[in-house]
Amino acid sequence: MSASEVKTIKGNVVIGQSGGPTNVINQSMVGVVETLRGQPGIGKILGAVHAVRGIINDEFVELQDIPQDRLDRIAQTPSAALGSSRDKPDEEYCQRIFEVLKRRDVHYFFYAGGNDSSDTCRIINELSNEAGYELRCFHIPKTIDNDLMENDHTPGYGSAAKFVTQAFMGDNLDNRALPGIKINVIMGRHAGFLTAASVLARQNPEDGPHLIYVPEVAFNEDKFLADVDRVYSKQGRCLIAVSEGISDKNHTPMAQRLAEEQGHNVEKDSHGNVQLSGSGALGDFLAIHIKNNLGQSLRVRADTFGYLQRCFAGCVSSVDADEARGAGQKAAELALSGDIDGSVAIHRTGNDPYRTEFHRIELADVAAKTRTLDKQFIESTNNITDAFREYATPLVGRLPVIESLRFNRG
Amino acid sequence: MSASEVKTIKGNVVIGQSGGPTNVINQSMVGVVETLRGQPGIGKILGAVHAVRGIINDEFVELQDIPQDRLDRIAQTPSAALGSSRDKPDEEYCQRIFEVLKRRDVHYFFYAGGNDSSDTCRIINELSNEAGYELRCFHIPKTIDNDLMENDHTPGYGSAAKFVTQAFMGDNLDNRALPGIKINVIMGRHAGFLTAASVLARQNPEDGPHLIYVPEVAFNEDKFLADVDRVYSKQGRCLIAVSEGISDKNHTPMAQRLAEEQGHNVEKDSHGNVQLSGSGALGDFLAIHIKNNLGQSLRVRADTFGYLQRCFAGCVSSVDADEARGAGQKAAELALSGDIDGSVAIHRTGNDPYRTEFHRIELADVAAKTRTLDKQFIESTNNITDAFREYATPLVGRLPVIESLRFNRG
Repeated sequence: MSASEVKTIKGNVVIGQSGGPTNVINQSMVGVVETLRGQPGIGKILGAVHAVRGIINDEFVELQDIPQDRLDRIAQTPSAALGSSRDKPDEEYCQRIFEVLKRRDVHYFFYAGGNDSSDTCRIINELSNEAGYELRCFHIPKTIDNDLMENDHTPGYGSAAKFVTQAFMGDNLDNRALPGIKINVIMGRHAGFLTAASVLARQNPEDGPHLIYVPEVAFNEDKFLADVDRVYSKQGRCLIAVSEGISDKNHTPMAQRLAEEQGHNVEKDSHGNVQLSGSGALGDFLAIHIKNNLGQSLRVRADTFGYLQRCFAGCVSSVDADEARGAGQKAAELALSGDIDGSVAIHRTGNDPYRTEFHRIELADVAAKTRTLDKQFIESTNNITDAFREYATPLVGRLPVIESLRFNRG
Repeated sequence: MSASEVKTIKGNVVIGQSGGPTNVINQSMVGVVETLRGQPGIGKILGAVHAVRGIINDEFVELQDIPQDRLDRIAQTPSAALGSSRDKPDEEYCQRIFEVLKRRDVHYFFYAGGNDSSDTCRIINELSNEAGYELRCFHIPKTIDNDLMENDHTPGYGSAAKFVTQAFMGDNLDNRALPGIKINVIMGRHAGFLTAASVLARQNPEDGPHLIYVPEVAFNEDKFLADVDRVYSKQGRCLIAVSEGISDKNHTPMAQRLAEEQGHNVEKDSHGNVQLSGSGALGDFLAIHIKNNLGQSLRVRADTFGYLQRCFAGCVSSVDADEARGAGQKAAELALSGDIDGSVAIHRTGNDPYRTEFHRIELADVAAKTRTLDKQFIESTNNITDAFREYATPLVGRLPVIESLRFNRG
């Protein structure tokens, strides 16, 4: 942009990182810092400790003087270096945030997170507009669930999808070596993108996962048993990918339904939600359901990938890391360019070679909305399409080499 | 060795891979194949499909003609390429194995596995001696549990320990970003080596795991609560590593004891063993135990690493891979060198720089015995010593870079 187009405003900067951490959310933070520091008018760059909570408690870390090599190492480090928060601010909470920003002479606000975070940005931005206070508010997309509207995909997803793929690559070979029925439960209450990534582990026709169940498709227990029986009878083994959020046609989560069928008390959290994540319940219930119906002597095992999916050190997609960094840089560039606000969205402009562009979109377009797995990515009730494979392959990047010996079955 | 020392015998070769697969067991198989093929007298090199079961069913894959580049890719691939088995042959089963080996003119037998596998080798070797049939039997060590006698450590352990370390590096930062109490359950019914590896994730004084419980130390529920309460009060968070096999002072597994205390039915397998692995039970029971006693409003989560620990694609220690290959090569060299049998053991000859040697040991010295965590590696009831850290660091190898921002707490 030419100098005449730039309308700078002097002031300090606040950056926050919200919601569940990812392997690349620090890339986005570093992208903002390295783009803004030293620019005319930019003062202190303040990291909000534990996101919005740090703002209202006036807890910040200064980021503008960190040497670039240390910033680069922070960018490569999993999880949110500033700390995160699950707080979902209402109007009054946002008002308190805005008061702190004003008092601290903050005119640039960046918030990396999911759709709740973009909604927080939206509310704070409206408050600043009402007050006639120039605050350049940018949301930076981040979620392993990949469930943000207007984005081809979100920073954080590629690395989590890589974890799921590599876990299934290994577990498929484990299941081949010691055959049986194996269930893996993957994060995703409403969106099946992460579970779908398990399909990338299939490299040979007999490879698992042989069955994939996502929350977008109503789960039917009888159909499930028939699926498992068919695969097991043919291949002598069966590897299954299941989203934690699978529900029956009445939207009752299967974790809850199977627990009740099997006579267990169902644990609920303080909001009355059944606890699904970080617990082996769904996998164990499905395993028991299989044994009860297909035979007690079957070797059935279940694993729940849990929190390992989002921050496993060393399992990072380089495309994901680069895009997360770029999203932070783009948000900072946009904020420098004038009195605007919004969210940064990733648009795909090519698949071979893979190319993306960043676009500014309105906060309201991404705020508090949820994307689910596109219809074209779902095959029948228990599989994922080649179209998804094409979509996800460049996001996950290079995978380990697998070479198998051929022998009968499996 | 000079030609005069070599006492070759003409014949075919059988290789098998037994028990739980690892990330490097194919390295050992490839080490045997590449060392033996083309040597005088060596005929076919037969891979036993699904270990001893493949032998008695006469199911083999020929390995001698596989091009080296493909062999190298197989070596890098997780899990047992030949398939594995949990069968623990008795005398009669071993007799059937021996009959097949004789009929197939096999004079070299290699079996990679844990202590049960070395016992199988031992029995088959005795049968061949009784029959006056020259069979050169070699056991190749393999186990992620690291529980074989006479070995400084075993092939397979380093890569699984690397997985545990990297999982904890990420989860420590996850727990720092969203503070709470987090329990991670790690494989190991009797030996705490894999759980102990979590200590390598601690790089700064406040890093987790803050508490580590191994099966070698009797677990006390009240002491556990006091430990958690103390760490949580001080740091506002608490990351806990627990072996699946932790038991109380009467040797009752905690998974069973807590299940009963909390009014659940305990699932047992056909041998009457409580199912511990691949299930979220112990972690969930510990989480409930904490909430029931320290407060229902606490954020307590549990993950069970499960099968991901042993074959996660791409999480391989290069030292482990090299040593697994070397163990296979050494076993093959020993078998070529004369009418001997035994197991290959890894001895450490230096730590800085790290150096190891392979030694031939007697099958009876490793067969059906279990090593547990050395006393010098255990600190009090809830921690692991610096001596262990020194021991395990070279086995795990290079770890991802971690760089944190300092802020209060965590």
